[in-house]
Amino acid sequence: MAQREPVMNERELEEFLDEVFPQQRGKFTIEKMASMEARLRMKITEAELRPGGTVSGPAMFTAVDCAFYVVVLGMIGRQALTVTTNCAINFMRKPEPKDLVVEAKLMKLGKTLAVGDATVFSPGVEGPVCHASLTYAIPPAR
Amino acid sequence: MAQREPVMNERELEEFLDEVFPQQRGKFTIEKMASMEARLRMKITEAELRPGGTVSGPAMFTAVDCAFYVVVLGMIGRQALTVTTNCAINFMRKPEPKDLVVEAKLMKLGKTLAVGDATVFSPGVEGPVCHASLTYAIPPAR
Amino acid sequence: MAQREPVMNERELEEFLDEVFPQQRGKFTIEKMASMEARLRMKITEAELRPGGTVSGPAMFTAVDCAFYVVVLGMIGRQALTVTTNCAINFMRKPEPKDLVVEAKLMKLGKTLAVGDATVFSPGVEGPVCHASLTYAIPPAR
Amino acid sequence: MAQREPVMNERELEEFLDEVFPQQRGKFTIEKMASMEARLRMKITEAELRPGGTVSGPAMFTAVDCAFYVVVLGMIGRQALTVTTNCAINFMRKPEPKDLVVEAKLMKLGKTLAVGDATVFSPGVEGPVCHASLTYAIPPAR
Repeated sequence: MAQREPVMNERELEEFLDEVFPQQRGKFTIEKMASMEARLRMKITEAELRPGGTVSGPAMFTAVDCAFYVVVLGMIGRQALTVTTNCAINFMRKPEPKDLVVEAKLMKLGKTLAVGDATVFSPGVEGPVCHASLTYAIPPAR
Repeated sequence: MAQREPVMNERELEEFLDEVFPQQRGKFTIEKMASMEARLRMKITEAELRPGGTVSGPAMFTAVDCAFYVVVLGMIGRQALTVTTNCAINFMRKPEPKDLVVEAKLMKLGKTLAVGDATVFSPGVEGPVCHASLTYAIPPAR
Repeated sequence: MAQREPVMNERELEEFLDEVFPQQRGKFTIEKMASMEARLRMKITEAELRPGGTVSGPAMFTAVDCAFYVVVLGMIGRQALTVTTNCAINFMRKPEPKDLVVEAKLMKLGKTLAVGDATVFSPGVEGPVCHASLTYAIPPAR
Repeated sequence: MAQREPVMNERELEEFLDEVFPQQRGKFTIEKMASMEARLRMKITEAELRPGGTVSGPAMFTAVDCAFYVVVLGMIGRQALTVTTNCAINFMRKPEPKDLVVEAKLMKLGKTLAVGDATVFSPGVEGPVCHASLTYAIPPAR
């Protein structure tokens, strides 16, 4: 089949994130938006660190959830109400207390459901620190 | 078999949370710690709200993760390094922009793994807003 | 809210299973169908045993999947095309090489999605042997 | 780091499967075993078909579970007692009533836990029909 192309680019997606989540302005940099995949960088601050100098589980959840939101919106366009219905997340390695890099991929982009996964990397750590499978519900177009 | 009893009570668990997560002091109230189960209340602040007046997915993840941490520690005692290895979470209903109540239950408490689930309620919403299955790795005693 | 009642009883559900899955006739006994919950018994045969005298993972998956199918159909009526979209399953204890008992519960029964869980017991084993969270897609009525 | 190499090849793995699961002899063909990944083909028989001419969910679970078992054993050697502790599976598309192809990948191969995923393809269907994240417990060496 013909490859499906994104309908929003990196800069448009960042502006949209800043618009709908103003309290997180500047937290995410969208490094890449391509067909059915995206790569983000997430700034980690003091509040997201844990004893032992690592990044908290909820911060990693935020990273995969946001990356998946971006890859879905990049493909279907501005739909703030798209919501996560399901996420299965495995924590595999201790991240460094540094920014995270997340790669999200869509495996299915249907009319009502999007299914895919997201992998989190921590610079300096070999192998992914975290992996998640996600499902998003896409609200019917009006 | 004889029912296994908790080794920490509500107040001891709250103090421990404040000690290991000082940046979240006062965020969680532990309403109940009983055999293999716990109930918590989590304060929701402006930063955790989303457009449409609801609570964010990462905030609900934080709620289930913390509740499961509490029920595990309540049964095995102070072990800050216990870590989530796996979480499968379903988002079912839109919570109100209010505090969340979480009930966590252990289904297995082995020497190296604890398995159970956590259910999130939003006062005023009928039925759970979110449900998660979690696995924790318990570090070997030294 | 008023409690929602089942629209099929135990015997009707068993007959429906035998009709749509004739190759499994007699494998499942439906012990209970009540509001938003069901209990089944699944016959275990030689082919589902594993070395060490235990029941295979795929057999336990079959048990949770069938029990969830039954509880959904019991509430919405005969809809053979209802399909599993998602299942997160934790294997906790080694079952005995015997029949399994499964309890399924619905936490949400919407127009297009049903969400709930199923817990598997093995007679003689203390505590559940397996627990799963499941999501079903309900096809639009015609 | 130096790439970790498999310790069993395709033929050795097939022989091992036939030995530990004699009731499934010939069901799986191992097409590839490479560093941290494997590809299998699973024969589908009448018993695994469903109304509407598709493959059952439990058959797809069997495919991902077996493929993950193979990739783990291919890397660590013959350990029949390695067991699935957790699987999160998404069913995305209706497979054809034909043999399935499964690709399994390891993301982490620790001393006690192996974590990775498996993707199922149905010849003639565009895109994966099913995707699963799995965790295996590796028993301590004696």
